[in-house]
Amino acid sequence: MEPGSGSGGAGPAVTPVAAVLPAGGSGERLGSATPKQFCAVQGRPLVSYTVRAMERISWISKIIVVVSPENIETMKSIIEKYGHERVMIVEGGITRHRSIFNGLKVFAENEFSNHLLQKPEVVIIHDAVRPFVEEDILSKVVLAAKEHGAAGAIRPLVSTVIASAADGCLDHSLERARYRASEMPQAFLFDVIYEAYQQCTDYDLDYGTECLHLALKYCNTNAKLVEGTADLWKVTYKRDLYAAESIIKDNLSQQVCVITYVKEAVAQVGFLLHEYLKSQIKDKKYAIQETQQLVDMLEKSNIPLLYPVVLISVHLGVSENISFSIGMEELTRIKKFAREVKKKNILVYGLLIQYKDHLLLQETVNSAAALIMALIKDRNPELIGQLLVA
Amino acid sequence: MEPGSGSGGAGPAVTPVAAVLPAGGSGERLGSATPKQFCAVQGRPLVSYTVRAMERISWISKIIVVVSPENIETMKSIIEKYGHERVMIVEGGITRHRSIFNGLKVFAENEFSNHLLQKPEVVIIHDAVRPFVEEDILSKVVLAAKEHGAAGAIRPLVSTVIASAADGCLDHSLERARYRASEMPQAFLFDVIYEAYQQCTDYDLDYGTECLHLALKYCNTNAKLVEGTADLWKVTYKRDLYAAESIIKDNLSQQVCVITYVKEAVAQVGFLLHEYLKSQIKDKKYAIQETQQLVDMLEKSNIPLLYPVVLISVHLGVSENISFSIGMEELTRIKKFAREVKKKNILVYGLLIQYKDHLLLQETVNSAAALIMALIKDRNPELIGQLLVA
Repeated sequence: MEPGSGSGGAGPAVTPVAAVLPAGGSGERLGSATPKQFCAVQGRPLVSYTVRAMERISWISKIIVVVSPENIETMKSIIEKYGHERVMIVEGGITRHRSIFNGLKVFAENEFSNHLLQKPEVVIIHDAVRPFVEEDILSKVVLAAKEHGAAGAIRPLVSTVIASAADGCLDHSLERARYRASEMPQAFLFDVIYEAYQQCTDYDLDYGTECLHLALKYCNTNAKLVEGTADLWKVTYKRDLYAAESIIKDNLSQQVCVITYVKEAVAQVGFLLHEYLKSQIKDKKYAIQETQQLVDMLEKSNIPLLYPVVLISVHLGVSENISFSIGMEELTRIKKFAREVKKKNILVYGLLIQYKDHLLLQETVNSAAALIMALIKDRNPELIGQLLVA
Repeated sequence: MEPGSGSGGAGPAVTPVAAVLPAGGSGERLGSATPKQFCAVQGRPLVSYTVRAMERISWISKIIVVVSPENIETMKSIIEKYGHERVMIVEGGITRHRSIFNGLKVFAENEFSNHLLQKPEVVIIHDAVRPFVEEDILSKVVLAAKEHGAAGAIRPLVSTVIASAADGCLDHSLERARYRASEMPQAFLFDVIYEAYQQCTDYDLDYGTECLHLALKYCNTNAKLVEGTADLWKVTYKRDLYAAESIIKDNLSQQVCVITYVKEAVAQVGFLLHEYLKSQIKDKKYAIQETQQLVDMLEKSNIPLLYPVVLISVHLGVSENISFSIGMEELTRIKKFAREVKKKNILVYGLLIQYKDHLLLQETVNSAAALIMALIKDRNPELIGQLLVA
């Protein structure tokens, strides 16, 4: 049910690999009190998506999340709530480099951890605020790090880079084609990056941000640069949270399960609806269940923990009665049920398809399909328990 | 009704200022067949938002939009449809620099235009895919250009910039604090930038992108660099379109007009709802109108041309009858009406507030307010004509 889940790729399976996720940033550029890695996207903190992106890759044996002291409890509760595994929380330092260094120490220094973890051959460093990282690029940087000692993802520059003079005027601009933006993930032979951190100055630890630079400066290791895809981008500003939300919704709306309780007279409508949806969405299953049973089943599956699940109860009306009547108490009961179920991260909506005129059947079916697609795509929590009419 | 409209700021009012918007890009980074400047955001091409951002500033006398030959007709129809004024379309060249140069020529070369436009003292250059530019930064770069000959907006670098060696490995990384991203808008004394374009080489025209660089190289003009805000960002990738859509929706949902047709018995509900909404939204007006009249009024106002307008018809039910009954024909009629009105870019939704139990009044009002906020914020075109129940 999860986009791109599993780790079917070859992967550097035999190399012991760990990951360090610095998640200590304050998020000041976001203009929000909550650091961006803890901002909710579809109800779930951003860092949980990134942890999940790492966790689903079987060849990453340990994930170290480095957070500032005041967020350790928050991070613990996120790991517990979303059932993350192979994760260890480490207290960060006052800068990004100091935090990463702390994260690496758990593999090398006894006094820093109750139980010294097995030292990985390669360590991945990745930002907690880049949730869309794929196995392909992780695999590439790990393999390149094995060969070159260090490797990092790069992207073309979006803007020209310029240097300013002391008077606030342009000094010179860089030729865009010669430079790249250094992105994450990066990977290192553990011994290379750990040696670099041990050697580097306090100035480096306090003012630097670039791990590739430390490997070059202190271990004479020229990192291999690997072209990454656009989805490596870092959630930095509020607009990036909007974008992340839309991308996650988009991915989710590709995953639909249609369950039909087929009665003879309505089979045709169900069939047409199904045919229409088939052209719009992937993945489908069949079963005969009632809504409550479905909710119970979903709850047991743990799927709604990771993403809000949309459950649309479709009613096919074929009566000759052209008046639609429903008691307010019935509506209230449905809304109350939907509110209860929402606490389990399941969004229930109702859809009535009134099938009375054969000539209008296709139109009604199109309208129903459009409504279903809209509900799935929007996952609007305020509209739960409403009965829409196709 | 438009966010940040009007030009209340002082502005460099006495200086003749024109703007050139290069809009010839192919949008290959977006992964879409449509160039990004023509992609629809809330139904309206992105370039129209940017033109509007310029047009609403009274001291910009002329806006030159430079598009590739195959998009001239598209751009003409956009200008006509959205009623843009002070805009002139110019045919672009094969590169960004050649397009900007073409845009400048209409002020200087008789043969390039039927009627030579009055040469501005200062010319703004701004990307068609940066729709959120504000008057403040435009004013700052224009004033700085008057003083220094050239000026451009800059932003801190989001990623470290690195140079790669011929073998695809890291050569060196730049110290992030010393460099800035060069963004738009930029402004120039017309004579400076025009001179620079006349002097520059074919190599510059074909492979360069940075106007500030040309002013420095060919006119010895060191541009003043002006710190811009985060909203200057350029729509480059698909995720940026998502972000633009969310930002526009967010801005729009700050603008609400509540119209109540007050009957004695329901006055209290209306009052409470109003009180609740007051804490959520700005701008309100009162009037007594019917939906159709409102639609006519809105259509005449031209407001729905620029943004989809949400019209929620709220019905307050106070009958003792606790069953809610509505004919399917009535529902069909409402949906048909909504579909007609949608062609005018007006989205009509229905909301029933059933007021039967004084004890539950506050809860019902909260629920109604939440539904209204959700409808306004989402502007979902698929849900038009539906009757929601609070």
